[in-house]
Amino acid sequence: MHIIRSQTNNSSYPVYIGTDFIDSGLLQTLLPMPRIVLVTDQTVADIYLQTICETLTGFSLNLIILPPGEVNKNWEAVTKIIDVLVAFKHDRFSTLVSLGGGVIGDVTGFAASIFMRGINWLQLPTTLMAQVDAAVGGKTGCNYFGIKNLIGTFYQPQNVVIEIAFLRTLPDREYLSGLAEVVKYGMACDGEFFIWLEKHIYDLINRDPNILELAIHRCCQIKLELVQQDENDHGQRRVLNFGHTFAHALESATEFASILHGEAVAIGMLLATRLAVKLGLVERELLIRLYNLLNCIGLPLALPSEISSVGALYNFMMRDKKKQAAQLSLMLPCALGKIKVIQGLDLKCLEDLIQDYAST
Amino acid sequence: MHIIRSQTNNSSYPVYIGTDFIDSGLLQTLLPMPRIVLVTDQTVADIYLQTICETLTGFSLNLIILPPGEVNKNWEAVTKIIDVLVAFKHDRFSTLVSLGGGVIGDVTGFAASIFMRGINWLQLPTTLMAQVDAAVGGKTGCNYFGIKNLIGTFYQPQNVVIEIAFLRTLPDREYLSGLAEVVKYGMACDGEFFIWLEKHIYDLINRDPNILELAIHRCCQIKLELVQQDENDHGQRRVLNFGHTFAHALESATEFASILHGEAVAIGMLLATRLAVKLGLVERELLIRLYNLLNCIGLPLALPSEISSVGALYNFMMRDKKKQAAQLSLMLPCALGKIKVIQGLDLKCLEDLIQDYAST
Repeated sequence: MHIIRSQTNNSSYPVYIGTDFIDSGLLQTLLPMPRIVLVTDQTVADIYLQTICETLTGFSLNLIILPPGEVNKNWEAVTKIIDVLVAFKHDRFSTLVSLGGGVIGDVTGFAASIFMRGINWLQLPTTLMAQVDAAVGGKTGCNYFGIKNLIGTFYQPQNVVIEIAFLRTLPDREYLSGLAEVVKYGMACDGEFFIWLEKHIYDLINRDPNILELAIHRCCQIKLELVQQDENDHGQRRVLNFGHTFAHALESATEFASILHGEAVAIGMLLATRLAVKLGLVERELLIRLYNLLNCIGLPLALPSEISSVGALYNFMMRDKKKQAAQLSLMLPCALGKIKVIQGLDLKCLEDLIQDYAST
Repeated sequence: MHIIRSQTNNSSYPVYIGTDFIDSGLLQTLLPMPRIVLVTDQTVADIYLQTICETLTGFSLNLIILPPGEVNKNWEAVTKIIDVLVAFKHDRFSTLVSLGGGVIGDVTGFAASIFMRGINWLQLPTTLMAQVDAAVGGKTGCNYFGIKNLIGTFYQPQNVVIEIAFLRTLPDREYLSGLAEVVKYGMACDGEFFIWLEKHIYDLINRDPNILELAIHRCCQIKLELVQQDENDHGQRRVLNFGHTFAHALESATEFASILHGEAVAIGMLLATRLAVKLGLVERELLIRLYNLLNCIGLPLALPSEISSVGALYNFMMRDKKKQAAQLSLMLPCALGKIKVIQGLDLKCLEDLIQDYAST
């Protein structure tokens, strides 16, 4: 088991990483007050709800089961949670528990941050993507007007419990999508970790729990260090958006339906690295290593067939939150494990890039 | 002119208090980026919009005029602001300017805090209530399910500009309602200020700008000191809720339509002080001084006629955000300028209190 402590200006909380947390009674010790609202989705509920509920006997529990998937990460989901909080007369001393992937975590955290201006929140991420990314760092939110995470808050949970055993039941496609985000940490922040990933990629694909624990621990460590320096995402933390401006545009353009976030991130990282090669920031060799690692994982690396026009993708990129005034900021690799912020790329350059990618 | 600096863990911003800020060009110097969305209500727009717009030539301005009043302080108002931000492709570098009373400030601040997880916000409060209370301290939010401020955030603006000249055109009823909140600062936090108010109450009723500037300055000073110690309202800041648990219940029970916030606070302070006398916390003399001051201001001090049953009021009190587990926390005076938190009062005691008040 590993424990990392997240430290920001306003909060300090532990992140537990390991196995058998549910049976061990850890949850009970982390819940200070008896009233809980557990938020999950139907997919997770089918597998884990009974176990979790049995663990939480002795607590007064309300249950919210949301429809699964990014397409349901909307304001309606947030209001469903608030409606239950109101209907059952919860107060500032109740705790919201999110049991699920990034979608469940983000909408539950958003509700926790705005209900009575903030109540307790415990995160139980069940997907690899959520365990290495969404569940740490305190970004909450939902999509709005079809734009990813357009509304949300910075809000830290009281505890994050990363139970690696949850990953055993994760469908292959979702699991591999999470590995794309793991690769991002290596590419963007830690070259040695990238090399370690190249070496252990088959253990990771086979979900070896010991190797997984090391990988998740390193990802969370990197993320929490960056969050500590820059909670509100205006500086250093932005390197974590490597590949994500492209990825968010891909997800928006396909209406969050046909491509998983990690799959979009994989393509986004390749686009960003290809652009970096084009601009002379890095050698072509890095692009090849990245491609080989993502390909070895088995991620789909072609542009989704729904992307009919490069212009549509470009328009969604220009809606990106990290855009400064009229200028798009892109995080591009300048070495293995190092990112440089590039601004002021013109439409033509990006159009060519996407066109080139689509045709090869 | 007075300038106070607000200091919290996450932010530091100036509060300007004085006259002729609009003509002096201060606003232009406080707006760092050229894109602005100005939010106001119809009542304020009729009087001040032209002047403000003339002041802001050179900026790219979008305008949102919301219907006025507490009854419109709802999620729909927040979404109207977000809709305009989306429609005109605003980004993290745009600034929301709120020109109006507490309702406009609270919904604009809420939108500013959640759009792209937080954008710039400049407050221009136009009512006395907003100038001494709502515009400083960083509480944002809206009513939901008819419950006051049920959803919202803690979020600090970049600047607050308190233009006292705005108060000249404020209708009597709204102005006097604001004075109730001024009296609260004396009762809850500063006995000397209460005595000063007793002495200068006619100058205040006559809106003497010099006396007003001193009063507003002292209120903001008290509030910002408390916010600095306790931004998230779990400790010392709660003394500012003196009278407010009763007041929020009164407002909810009358559906935010027939009673102004300050009027409800005046009755709430009397109820709380009467209760304090009943519990032996203070002498009856303090209740009489408070009653005389509020009565001299000309505030309506009888329970609204719509409050048909004491039980209904009690139920709304039990929904209060400051309630801990099943227990209601009440801020009661224990001396002039001093508050004590009292918990665990039973239904019977509160029912008797409200019944007594209604019948005298």
